[in-house]
Amino acid sequence: MPSVPRKPDPTRRSERSRQAILEATRELISEVGYAKLSVEAIAARAGVGKQTIYRWWRSKGAVVFDSFLALSEGVDGMALPDTGDIEADLKAVIRATVAEFADPTFEAPIRALNLEIASDPDLAAQYREKLAGPVDEAKKERLRSAQRAGQIAADADLDLALELLYAPLYQRWLLRSGPLTPEYADAVVDHVLRALRP
Amino acid sequence: MPSVPRKPDPTRRSERSRQAILEATRELISEVGYAKLSVEAIAARAGVGKQTIYRWWRSKGAVVFDSFLALSEGVDGMALPDTGDIEADLKAVIRATVAEFADPTFEAPIRALNLEIASDPDLAAQYREKLAGPVDEAKKERLRSAQRAGQIAADADLDLALELLYAPLYQRWLLRSGPLTPEYADAVVDHVLRALRP
Repeated sequence: MPSVPRKPDPTRRSERSRQAILEATRELISEVGYAKLSVEAIAARAGVGKQTIYRWWRSKGAVVFDSFLALSEGVDGMALPDTGDIEADLKAVIRATVAEFADPTFEAPIRALNLEIASDPDLAAQYREKLAGPVDEAKKERLRSAQRAGQIAADADLDLALELLYAPLYQRWLLRSGPLTPEYADAVVDHVLRALRP
Repeated sequence: MPSVPRKPDPTRRSERSRQAILEATRELISEVGYAKLSVEAIAARAGVGKQTIYRWWRSKGAVVFDSFLALSEGVDGMALPDTGDIEADLKAVIRATVAEFADPTFEAPIRALNLEIASDPDLAAQYREKLAGPVDEAKKERLRSAQRAGQIAADADLDLALELLYAPLYQRWLLRSGPLTPEYADAVVDHVLRALRP
């Protein structure tokens, strides 16, 4: 049999390019914000051609959402802790969210992205599909476990439960309408659990 | 006594100019959005000099907030209904809010303003002082009446209560993350009242 010349492994090369693109995206969004971010700049920073990016993602927004998802090692990394104590677990998670919102290096790119989402219905739809939807699903998994344990009403509306937990922090952060403290996080969780009690 | 020549009433002339400025502001914000709105354009539309506007308001944001407040005939017009039934009153109000968010002619200028507030901490502070603060105070008055009637816990945190009532609708509207329906309004009120029960 004729010897076959060794070719580079395309799968491994692809994964390296993918990681470089996601990293470049996160760097650039912190440096220039979402509005000024361009696919050209991402390609240049990542050392790939623009067409490589468009082969995997249909838009700038899609790359950005994947770059945020990759930070948490995908949706699996977004799963909430489950110690069996829903109150303790939610307080830990909501306190962490409050701390992220209070951190300028974290909140700046998220703010830029939120302004863009709020003014662009197409981007909002992509955001739901690529990022918010899967993340919410992971959070609801924890609430379902609390339902099975009898800590939350079996017929609770879990989408509304997530909104009651997260929207107050979101609004306070976005409009800078009040302090984001651990005590505030705990108060929100206490109220929402009271509303969801079986 | 010498006769005094009749002078135009300066109070009445001032009030006419003030109303013309507020009306011009509302018209223009619907036509061009907040970002492109200029004090020059407001002055031209209202038929006054730019300096007249700056005598009464320190910035474009301040005029805009007053123009929205004037729509409700000031903070008094923002008072919530009080039939004695907190559940019915809140459902009426939250259904009306949901309907406003779902109305394109209403929501477009509010969205433009919210994007500006979210990206400008100074404007956010003015918004709290001139518009959100007084409106929230009027809403809290209704919640205090429910506290006196024993329908809401006497020690309830009323700022948090307002956030739990309004932030879920606000987030759903801003991020277009779900339908804004009367049923949704009712579900939010039911949950929040359960959380605030004495």
